[in-house]
Amino acid sequence: MAPVGSKRGVLERLGSGEVVIGDGGFVFALEKRGYVKAGPWTPEAAAEHPEAVRQLHREFLRAGSNVMQTFTFYASDDKLENRGNKLTFTGQQINEAACDLAREVANEGDALVAGGVSQTPSYLSCKSQDEVKKIFKKQIDVFIKKNVDFLIAEYFEHVEEAEWAVQVLKATGKPVAATLCIGPEGDMHGVTPGECAVRLVKAGADIVGVNCHFDPMTCVKTVAMMKAGVEKAGLKAHYMTQPLAYHTPDCSCQGFIDLPEFPFALEPRILTRWDMQHYAREAYKAGIRYIGGCCGFEPYHIRAVAEELATERGTLPEASEKHGMWGSGLEMHTKPWVRARARRDYWEHLKPASGRPLCPSMSTPDGWGVTRGHAELMQQKEATTAEQLRPLFQKSDAKH
Amino acid sequence: MAPVGSKRGVLERLGSGEVVIGDGGFVFALEKRGYVKAGPWTPEAAAEHPEAVRQLHREFLRAGSNVMQTFTFYASDDKLENRGNKLTFTGQQINEAACDLAREVANEGDALVAGGVSQTPSYLSCKSQDEVKKIFKKQIDVFIKKNVDFLIAEYFEHVEEAEWAVQVLKATGKPVAATLCIGPEGDMHGVTPGECAVRLVKAGADIVGVNCHFDPMTCVKTVAMMKAGVEKAGLKAHYMTQPLAYHTPDCSCQGFIDLPEFPFALEPRILTRWDMQHYAREAYKAGIRYIGGCCGFEPYHIRAVAEELATERGTLPEASEKHGMWGSGLEMHTKPWVRARARRDYWEHLKPASGRPLCPSMSTPDGWGVTRGHAELMQQKEATTAEQLRPLFQKSDAKH
Amino acid sequence: MAPVGSKRGVLERLGSGEVVIGDGGFVFALEKRGYVKAGPWTPEAAAEHPEAVRQLHREFLRAGSNVMQTFTFYASDDKLENRGNKLTFTGQQINEAACDLAREVANEGDALVAGGVSQTPSYLSCKSQDEVKKIFKKQIDVFIKKNVDFLIAEYFEHVEEAEWAVQVLKATGKPVAATLCIGPEGDMHGVTPGECAVRLVKAGADIVGVNCHFDPMTCVKTVAMMKAGVEKAGLKAHYMTQPLAYHTPDCSCQGFIDLPEFPFALEPRILTRWDMQHYAREAYKAGIRYIGGCCGFEPYHIRAVAEELATERGTLPEASEKHGMWGSGLEMHTKPWVRARARRDYWEHLKPASGRPLCPSMSTPDGWGVTRGHAELMQQKEATTAEQLRPLFQKSDAKH
Amino acid sequence: MAPVGSKRGVLERLGSGEVVIGDGGFVFALEKRGYVKAGPWTPEAAAEHPEAVRQLHREFLRAGSNVMQTFTFYASDDKLENRGNKLTFTGQQINEAACDLAREVANEGDALVAGGVSQTPSYLSCKSQDEVKKIFKKQIDVFIKKNVDFLIAEYFEHVEEAEWAVQVLKATGKPVAATLCIGPEGDMHGVTPGECAVRLVKAGADIVGVNCHFDPMTCVKTVAMMKAGVEKAGLKAHYMTQPLAYHTPDCSCQGFIDLPEFPFALEPRILTRWDMQHYAREAYKAGIRYIGGCCGFEPYHIRAVAEELATERGTLPEASEKHGMWGSGLEMHTKPWVRARARRDYWEHLKPASGRPLCPSMSTPDGWGVTRGHAELMQQKEATTAEQLRPLFQKSDAKH
Repeated sequence: MAPVGSKRGVLERLGSGEVVIGDGGFVFALEKRGYVKAGPWTPEAAAEHPEAVRQLHREFLRAGSNVMQTFTFYASDDKLENRGNKLTFTGQQINEAACDLAREVANEGDALVAGGVSQTPSYLSCKSQDEVKKIFKKQIDVFIKKNVDFLIAEYFEHVEEAEWAVQVLKATGKPVAATLCIGPEGDMHGVTPGECAVRLVKAGADIVGVNCHFDPMTCVKTVAMMKAGVEKAGLKAHYMTQPLAYHTPDCSCQGFIDLPEFPFALEPRILTRWDMQHYAREAYKAGIRYIGGCCGFEPYHIRAVAEELATERGTLPEASEKHGMWGSGLEMHTKPWVRARARRDYWEHLKPASGRPLCPSMSTPDGWGVTRGHAELMQQKEATTAEQLRPLFQKSDAKH
Repeated sequence: MAPVGSKRGVLERLGSGEVVIGDGGFVFALEKRGYVKAGPWTPEAAAEHPEAVRQLHREFLRAGSNVMQTFTFYASDDKLENRGNKLTFTGQQINEAACDLAREVANEGDALVAGGVSQTPSYLSCKSQDEVKKIFKKQIDVFIKKNVDFLIAEYFEHVEEAEWAVQVLKATGKPVAATLCIGPEGDMHGVTPGECAVRLVKAGADIVGVNCHFDPMTCVKTVAMMKAGVEKAGLKAHYMTQPLAYHTPDCSCQGFIDLPEFPFALEPRILTRWDMQHYAREAYKAGIRYIGGCCGFEPYHIRAVAEELATERGTLPEASEKHGMWGSGLEMHTKPWVRARARRDYWEHLKPASGRPLCPSMSTPDGWGVTRGHAELMQQKEATTAEQLRPLFQKSDAKH
Repeated sequence: MAPVGSKRGVLERLGSGEVVIGDGGFVFALEKRGYVKAGPWTPEAAAEHPEAVRQLHREFLRAGSNVMQTFTFYASDDKLENRGNKLTFTGQQINEAACDLAREVANEGDALVAGGVSQTPSYLSCKSQDEVKKIFKKQIDVFIKKNVDFLIAEYFEHVEEAEWAVQVLKATGKPVAATLCIGPEGDMHGVTPGECAVRLVKAGADIVGVNCHFDPMTCVKTVAMMKAGVEKAGLKAHYMTQPLAYHTPDCSCQGFIDLPEFPFALEPRILTRWDMQHYAREAYKAGIRYIGGCCGFEPYHIRAVAEELATERGTLPEASEKHGMWGSGLEMHTKPWVRARARRDYWEHLKPASGRPLCPSMSTPDGWGVTRGHAELMQQKEATTAEQLRPLFQKSDAKH
Repeated sequence: MAPVGSKRGVLERLGSGEVVIGDGGFVFALEKRGYVKAGPWTPEAAAEHPEAVRQLHREFLRAGSNVMQTFTFYASDDKLENRGNKLTFTGQQINEAACDLAREVANEGDALVAGGVSQTPSYLSCKSQDEVKKIFKKQIDVFIKKNVDFLIAEYFEHVEEAEWAVQVLKATGKPVAATLCIGPEGDMHGVTPGECAVRLVKAGADIVGVNCHFDPMTCVKTVAMMKAGVEKAGLKAHYMTQPLAYHTPDCSCQGFIDLPEFPFALEPRILTRWDMQHYAREAYKAGIRYIGGCCGFEPYHIRAVAEELATERGTLPEASEKHGMWGSGLEMHTKPWVRARARRDYWEHLKPASGRPLCPSMSTPDGWGVTRGHAELMQQKEATTAEQLRPLFQKSDAKH
């Protein structure tokens, strides 16, 4: 177990070309374990059920994560008050407990602690820049007091609010990462990924990228667009992606929230470990070096990322003691046809069946009516065939 | 927290018409968390990583489980030796550790501890009845020393071996449950579910049913056939089902192991919580009162079973504090079309998309060649359309 | 062009082991061409638009058909009166015109003319045996006057009515074929395929089998059950199958009429020519020697049957001058990847995509409520997953 | 039946706002009927089997077509010589026979005759403008001699060759239509649909649009882009679309030829009549007034176009005497659940199942290696999931 003092910081690692592996999405994983309520998605479990949060941290650490993100998603005071239920713990207590858990587990291995803030109800209700910044400041005061290693502004749909967050984070002197929850079409005001990235870098972000809302390959593509934008502007940054663990080829520009299956019937979309190895490789090839996950990622998904990049990282994660690469654990199976699955070629080319013959392979996203006008919604709602649907996708593509 | 002494036993509960909720499959859940290796599937984590096993027990307890099964699947000495890797811990140590963990968490709530044995390599390699029974005896000695509340013989493909196990278990004086991993076509020698059940009851089982290998509705159907057999024979028993959490309409008679997706690409088949509520209701309607899960079940799946039967059980599980029934947690979402999902009708009728347009909805099982003759395998392999496939399914149905 | 007199009869051909290729379904083909109305499905076009009917006969002849069935489906007087619209032509005129057209084209090649009767509204409305037989007699009088080569009683859901028809047909002295529109579950009163076949043979049928309602492989299986029944009874017959050209793995016992897509959205289910070759081979292997088609069959489907059995028949059909076997017509394509499709292995293993990602691969049949009780219908209607659906299929399988 | 002399020309009709309904694709329809060979796709049947071609013309006329296109697709001399088989008839004879058949049937109703030319092997093998124009001239000489009503240059992948064709056609003084077989990404040199249209109008085309290669909604979208281009350039034209009758959401920029199912396994993609009504409405709403079809269109597809626009056209086609609007022919069915299908709402919202649970809903197009570079092909080939595929589609979308 490495002493804290000896750990290299996130920018040192990225600066030297190292791959930094992030963790997975805590709210979805803990919802399935019974500690987070879908809907509010708030992280009071950090204080209420620390053993559950600690265990999940440990699993990601074992899986290869180099970063323990404090479980402080949506833990701003304005969000916590908003959630309907009275909480037993204050926002301050939740944020502090989350820092302590992350630090405790980070110290068990070679991981850093990152304190995270995310978009606020205050911004959406048009509060002033000062008011919104105060919200971020309050969480960040805890992170500084607890001495996290770096800071992340994540899950922002509007680049403007992300800029404000970055400015507050930057003022602490800690390294700052910033990820938007956008796809190739850009933020909710149509600012392109490239332009978003440039604005975030100018605001002070050392690492930029995306998290949540879209599937891995869409996120890789979006970050590639960000990188191109930053480079074109003659700027420099590190790049980061923490996507969904769900296949969402049918998403509209607002991501998986608008899919009819969100959030309680996303199961058929879950990526396999092999899909994750593909993602890790493509992210690496695109020049992204901070590679993690968001909603839907379980520890074995992160392990797959770490295993795919084992050569580049020079190490396998601890949890690989319980995993044969490319299915090699099946080599001693009694049935020859199961043994025949113990090879890379098999899993890379398998097209897994859904077991659901009464279900389609794609859905029509809800909610276009509001963002795109009633006529289009109606067209969407009436679209019953792929060729009717595709032009709608393309129409949105055509924006750029 | 109830003192151990005051807990009513499993037969008292079932005898009074209570629903007993089982737990989920530990090997699959812990494989995803990084503590069990797919292939050997052995439970040494009970000794190696007790905190991970304890946490999973706790999550099932919170989700409503009334039974903590000792994490001793495949923990017979002949299996453990077989697994390829040298173990740090002896079989005795693993079995003891598993008992302690189950008891510790059971004591935190109203749960019983069940010690479990499963099929052995010794039987498959044609060892004698005495030798096989000795294998069971060794594990059971630990269970008795640790004073588990009742015993389960589970995951048997051959009713004969299950009978032997039941006889050994019965000799302890503890209540005995026995579940085969078979479907409607019966065991590997073609013994029908009804006949299997009769033999198990005659061997001494108080509770009979199935676990693993098939999806929930297939298991309910199989147990219904067992119940009909037992009743026709003028015998009495309680009934139990612990199915997969995967949709497997395309299984052959040997269950999900023969599906090309086993075990590393089953994700698209995972049941939603709503599928689980349907399962719980159908199991209940079929007269089954011990309702649990096996491979693929996560804590939220068990919670769904408990929530569906909340009226019958007179209580909601603890973890329901973090779950709105039928999606009610979405009632305060900012988007109206997401709020519109906060209702039972929506989730009951949703046909979730796979997000995988390049993948089929069903697969052709591997391995029929061995069990059914080469010609049929070839036919199966060449079958490219549903109508070609269906007769093959029906052929096997026709056996009965 | 062979003179009529020299043609060998259907029983001579079958008796010497020859394959007799039937034609395809006229009502569906002519509906798409604009000459038959879906709903009534009556054949007045024989009199109204003889050129269209003649052309379709010719296409089937070119494709390899050895039988021109008179286009007299549902041309019994009670049916024609029933159809809502006043007809310009009498039943007698329609039946006569149909005979003339079939004979005209049959004389252009080596084909026989078969006069066909099908089930009657009179039987369904519980008319007496005498009355129903009179209906058949009226059509048959025309067939005899026009000197057809043999007679077919086809599309009967009730074996009893088919027996009556066979008795009337047999009295003419012409060879008699009889096909029911049933699947492996038997007729509408649950009489098994084997028993149905025995009764038809005893009533006088020389050739027995099935037509319509189910997909090719289901029909082959059903006729195989008929053959087993006839042989078990120590009787003798020739066997015949004229299935749908639609994939219908999701059919209930009443066939494709209950599928939600019937009759105006069956397109995605249409068999390819390669599916047809597979069908022809399997039918041949099952000992069936009269191999044709029903609804959905287009001339190229019949050609595929003839091409698959070219070696057995010693000849290719005339229309093969416009068809390269196994895609060989693509050998000179400018694109190399299209040329790569000019081989048997490619087409035999291709799993064709539907191009409809918003659509499922199977449907739930309508109408079970009436035939199977309300509870089951409700269960069916609420079934949203494959595993929920499968047991229902199996339940019906279990009948036998 | 209207005398020829009294017929209004195509430009008069379009000029007065009338809808002109085209016919369907002869090569695919006649391939299925046994008169055209897939691969060469040449129209020698016009001379060899005139009765088959005449009958198909008649069916389209009955279905509502206002245009009989001469069956002269690929009937240029350089193409006919290329086809491998020696022909019994000369190109001149084939072109003349095709004109006679079209005229004969056109005279049976209110239809015009259009003579068509299509792209040539000569252009692809880099012959000079003069040589290519001579090829067109030779066919056109026949059309002029036979006095067709107007001319169509169709199925061009390169706008340059289409311009040459238009120039030759225009010189005759007849009205000229020009359709490319391109999608929204433009022609094979990346010329956008808008620019293509402008160039065709400037070359002399009175009517511009697309035919073949893509599904109806993609074609409507492409023509809409053409219209926007023409209007932006301050020019004027009429618009036309004759798409595939196949769903092809998974096409690459070169259209359905690159789909693995082309041309012998496209069945699951065939549009229903209801899909066609949707297409007709959308085409009309986009300002397109010449609405027809290409490969895959059968007479009932054209009838659906005519029925959808019955109000606008003031008439129903003759073949509607055999068709109840929106399934009304089912109103008298004996089964109540089939009667329940006799309504618009039912068919408009039905998502038809494929009956093929072992097949996917989308394919990966072949051949990208050549047009897009080997790396992308490999990525494409290895892509096993939708999200991997989508970025590839989008990459091509991004061109514009």
